[in-house]
Amino acid sequence: MSQTARPTAARDAAAGTAGAAGAAGAARTADTADDAGSRPAPDGAVLQELLLGRWAETRREARAVAADPRFHRVGGLSTAEHRERVFAQLAGLVEEGAVQRAFPREYGGQDAHGANIAAFEELVVADPSLQIKAGVQWGLFGAAVMHLGTEEHHRRLLPPIVDLRVPGAFAMTEIGHGSDVASIGTTAEYDPESEEFVLHTPFTGATKRYLGNAAVHGRDAVVFAQLITNGVNHGVHCFYCRIREDDGSAREGVTISDDGEKGGLNGVDNGRLSFDRVRVPRVDLLDRYGAVAADGAYSSSIESPGRRFFTMLGTLVQGRVSLTGASIAASKIALQGAITYGEQRRQFHASSTTEEEVLMDYQLHQRRLIPKLATTVAAGFAHEKLLTKLDDVFSGADDSDENRQELETLAAALKPTATWHALDTLQEAREACGGAGFMAENRFATLRADLDVYATFEGDNNVLLQLVAKRLLSDYAAEFRQADVGALSRYVVSQAQSTVLHRFGLRRALQNVQDTGDERRSANWFKQTEVQRSLLSDRVRQMVADVASALRSTAKLGPAEKAEAFNEHQHEIIAAASAHADLLLWESFTEALETVEHEDTRTVLTWLRDIHALSTIEQHLDWHLLHGRISAQRARTLTPYLNRLLARVRPYARQIAESFGYTADHLRMEVASGAEAERQAEAAEYHRRRRASGDSPVDEKTLRRS
Amino acid sequence: MSQTARPTAARDAAAGTAGAAGAAGAARTADTADDAGSRPAPDGAVLQELLLGRWAETRREARAVAADPRFHRVGGLSTAEHRERVFAQLAGLVEEGAVQRAFPREYGGQDAHGANIAAFEELVVADPSLQIKAGVQWGLFGAAVMHLGTEEHHRRLLPPIVDLRVPGAFAMTEIGHGSDVASIGTTAEYDPESEEFVLHTPFTGATKRYLGNAAVHGRDAVVFAQLITNGVNHGVHCFYCRIREDDGSAREGVTISDDGEKGGLNGVDNGRLSFDRVRVPRVDLLDRYGAVAADGAYSSSIESPGRRFFTMLGTLVQGRVSLTGASIAASKIALQGAITYGEQRRQFHASSTTEEEVLMDYQLHQRRLIPKLATTVAAGFAHEKLLTKLDDVFSGADDSDENRQELETLAAALKPTATWHALDTLQEAREACGGAGFMAENRFATLRADLDVYATFEGDNNVLLQLVAKRLLSDYAAEFRQADVGALSRYVVSQAQSTVLHRFGLRRALQNVQDTGDERRSANWFKQTEVQRSLLSDRVRQMVADVASALRSTAKLGPAEKAEAFNEHQHEIIAAASAHADLLLWESFTEALETVEHEDTRTVLTWLRDIHALSTIEQHLDWHLLHGRISAQRARTLTPYLNRLLARVRPYARQIAESFGYTADHLRMEVASGAEAERQAEAAEYHRRRRASGDSPVDEKTLRRS
Repeated sequence: MSQTARPTAARDAAAGTAGAAGAAGAARTADTADDAGSRPAPDGAVLQELLLGRWAETRREARAVAADPRFHRVGGLSTAEHRERVFAQLAGLVEEGAVQRAFPREYGGQDAHGANIAAFEELVVADPSLQIKAGVQWGLFGAAVMHLGTEEHHRRLLPPIVDLRVPGAFAMTEIGHGSDVASIGTTAEYDPESEEFVLHTPFTGATKRYLGNAAVHGRDAVVFAQLITNGVNHGVHCFYCRIREDDGSAREGVTISDDGEKGGLNGVDNGRLSFDRVRVPRVDLLDRYGAVAADGAYSSSIESPGRRFFTMLGTLVQGRVSLTGASIAASKIALQGAITYGEQRRQFHASSTTEEEVLMDYQLHQRRLIPKLATTVAAGFAHEKLLTKLDDVFSGADDSDENRQELETLAAALKPTATWHALDTLQEAREACGGAGFMAENRFATLRADLDVYATFEGDNNVLLQLVAKRLLSDYAAEFRQADVGALSRYVVSQAQSTVLHRFGLRRALQNVQDTGDERRSANWFKQTEVQRSLLSDRVRQMVADVASALRSTAKLGPAEKAEAFNEHQHEIIAAASAHADLLLWESFTEALETVEHEDTRTVLTWLRDIHALSTIEQHLDWHLLHGRISAQRARTLTPYLNRLLARVRPYARQIAESFGYTADHLRMEVASGAEAERQAEAAEYHRRRRASGDSPVDEKTLRRS
Repeated sequence: MSQTARPTAARDAAAGTAGAAGAAGAARTADTADDAGSRPAPDGAVLQELLLGRWAETRREARAVAADPRFHRVGGLSTAEHRERVFAQLAGLVEEGAVQRAFPREYGGQDAHGANIAAFEELVVADPSLQIKAGVQWGLFGAAVMHLGTEEHHRRLLPPIVDLRVPGAFAMTEIGHGSDVASIGTTAEYDPESEEFVLHTPFTGATKRYLGNAAVHGRDAVVFAQLITNGVNHGVHCFYCRIREDDGSAREGVTISDDGEKGGLNGVDNGRLSFDRVRVPRVDLLDRYGAVAADGAYSSSIESPGRRFFTMLGTLVQGRVSLTGASIAASKIALQGAITYGEQRRQFHASSTTEEEVLMDYQLHQRRLIPKLATTVAAGFAHEKLLTKLDDVFSGADDSDENRQELETLAAALKPTATWHALDTLQEAREACGGAGFMAENRFATLRADLDVYATFEGDNNVLLQLVAKRLLSDYAAEFRQADVGALSRYVVSQAQSTVLHRFGLRRALQNVQDTGDERRSANWFKQTEVQRSLLSDRVRQMVADVASALRSTAKLGPAEKAEAFNEHQHEIIAAASAHADLLLWESFTEALETVEHEDTRTVLTWLRDIHALSTIEQHLDWHLLHGRISAQRARTLTPYLNRLLARVRPYARQIAESFGYTADHLRMEVASGAEAERQAEAAEYHRRRRASGDSPVDEKTLRRS
């Protein structure tokens, strides 16, 4: 298959051959306005360029690498063999020039940060273990040296990291502390006598854990520890430290063990490190944000220890960004596989006694796969904005504090959304292919097993959403701080009115009068961009305002009481962050639509955007009803309208999935190979011939009927 | 740990040491009525006997076997090694007398059908591959001979199946047909000359697939094929057929291949079979429900081919029943693991600067795990009813057609519910343990990978729910057929009024007036058993009525139009079946509560039942709002009330999980070993000592503040 998506489904659709049942179903509904004319024919090339986005060329290069069998996961390997295969693949990536993009030009790189992540995330379709192992080496270990070290560190340490002469681990997480990095237990106490730090694991819980490259391949490590000098703990800093001798044995004072078998990603050699008073030269503190002079004096360009810590961690945001993109890539190939199979696989006679139905013509199958397709497209557009922001920050185009914080908040919102979405999509795709979906040859199950941990690494998803929520709450508070008293009191009055309206259902009641019984008017309302925007954005705003108002009364309480009050709203707080992410996806999709000039392409993508919006709204319909945003009358028409939209988009589902631009070399799924269509044709031909020959047995059922 | 649950949590709770934050949170709420007195102390022994249920003794025996390391999954095996280990374990099960219970006494069994499944499902905690491989040998292959064969078959074939001299495959599913068994393509045409059937795979799609025991170990197979004699196809029947020679090579005419690596269950040797005009002696048709005389004359005790087919398949319902029970068992150990860890693991300082919070004290953690615990308990009680019905049918205590159909409908409702619940629970438990949850040593990820396929095997979950829905629709129609005209017209009138009420929100509006602002009254309403019952049962009834009324207008249309109309409501239909399953779980929990005499135990279990009910209602709150079943006023209090209930049950969560009766030998999870508590104690002691010694470094943050 070429890079240009084959517009199979669209051609079929235009000719009226595919999806007849679905489309016919849609045509017979109350809402016929859009269906009346001839069916639109999206332009495959336009669609593909749009979906490939700003780094299309880089993605094509990276996908050429990912299509190479050398880099593919192969089944049946032992853990040890899989680890060695992946390590060898890293060297292959170096040869291909596939991993250097983010590094400075003087070390063989291109200073290209957005492109680097775009390329990196495509590795997931070859083998997620390869993606993560490469991420450990260059995205974490190398990136820590680059972002937390200074020129001297770059010159001395980067070259052998970039070309893999020195494989390394990123030793941040401890058994006792994952998401709460600030509380890690490892200490690095400065000894001015020897001008060395003493790296130490003071208790078992401070053992570094889950470190890729630690169990087998890492020679060095970047180790995060509490920097203590002159009796003061300056918080978490990063130290460059050798962990293995040239013969591969552990360096004296370093204890290395293997994390063993995992739920997935078994090509990555995760392991544990602990330190028994290991000496690290003073110059091996990566001291861009915090330095220790020979005499032990501490200095930093960032005065606040809290801001310093978050700045250091913030330079490592790309991990979250790349997991977002990789999750979207995995969702894309899963959907292409399941939709292709769903168009070929037949099961159960419904409308004909001789021909069984194609799965994609079942309403339930459409509901299972098409909203996931819509959300995958939305997430892709949102990720594009995230990559652009990352590129702006790291290229220096806009590295203001404000923009850095926005980048972090955006990454913290999208990473949970995209990683959970990928797990749900892989699962739905696997189940939609029945038993075949469970076979390793179709990759859904193994991809899901590998991506499972994406939900908790580089920041636990719930913890990230809580970070987003805190940002939303503080933005909300800042709005009030800036507002004059008049604005504030007007807001309070309008809020109070709004509460009254909701409390007594008056706003809803008014809508009832306008809406009675007119399904078409209701559908016309739901499909308006501004209606969708206000439903999704009002929800975030109101949820944040509600939590803020509930917490305002605790402002004067002690820390324990405050913490308890916060905890009593934790569920709402995280739901608000999640609503914010929903809005981000919708906004990104809507902005992307505005750039599409080809009319038929825009028409079909607009339906898809509407499916994304209305599925999201349907999931939280209770909220919209309770808060008077949607009347009961309108709400009742939502699901039927969404179902009609799904039937309308169904003939284009495969074309859209194919426009993601992945080819058979990326999918490598029997269900997407066309084999099922061949088997169906063979079976149909067998039945046809038997009927024609006249020697076909008569069904006992038919006999009894006659 | 002994078989008696350690009432650790309860003791802690009574002493006020554990879950103080959670419980304190609850105590400060508006709804203090139940919190005011002293805290109840459930009786661990009572709880455990209740949760172990009718087959407690059998479960204890089976768990003793499952606790034996011989039967455990071990990590790091190749697929070939894992398959051999599991096959050897089957022989171990024969030695233990662990698999014979369901067979007739004359073949070493006990005719004990409920007990057999109860014991069988416990194997999942040793290794799901062992459970499934045993299920293939005795629950499918052996059971087909037993249920579809006659005395002669039993005498001749059962003994070597029971004692594993003859391992066998159950060849039903084909590449082209899974859930739609009636349409399989394999043919068995009778040849009166030789008095043999000719078993044949006429096209690739008719190849048997995903058959456990086929790839390596099976010598024989029971093969499902279209029985053709005298030019008539009598539909699917089951044939006993040798597939391998004594040297393990495929029998002539039989092609065997390996399904290869799967997403899980890699201890089971799934493979494919196809037949090239393989001859099967006439006597090897398992002919209990359909026989062929020497001259080719077909006879059956069941006249209708449709009913005959469903009767044959119905005898194999135990597969679905056992997957339900195994899924619940897996959910139980996952929750015990995650809750134990959640009580020991600390993360983030919230209310104290020196001590971090225990995870279970976070509201979100309670919301993630406790409703799953409640639903697991509910599902366990529902499964108990299912097992009892299975025992009644297969023991002959009540094997009426009506009861058989009820058994099948109940199994079709509970299997999807329990299997999906297990996948969700394993995933939530794994994420709740962070990175540790992903390690194979904690088993969440591997159990989830193994159980993944439970959602689509023994009947695709969605297809099963559709079966349930069809039964609900036909029961509903039957009600009308039986009703006189007066009853019918009264019903129509009441429906019409009800529609008017909902349409204009009048019923809701009336509730608003009563409810205004009184949260306690609202909570008192939600916790009433009859309120929960009517919310859950009205939903099923109304959904079924709505679909029935939408489909009624299609009664006179042709099959294609009818199929299309059905398809346009497929999503609603399946949602109705799912609502029915929700009701079944709730009813089972409520009935079980009525048997609990110990007051404190009943009190806590009632809270847990309320959590199950209100979580279910919360998930579908939009429906209850749209249909006027809950007013907006009351609906707004639902989530806060549920959150308070969670905090109230939180101190008992571990005791309840431990009362499932699994011990460390069953859990085999590092997170549940107590190691985390030891690490926390060690870290706390380290910090305490450093603070006391005075040589603790000062935090830079503290310095700056002072």
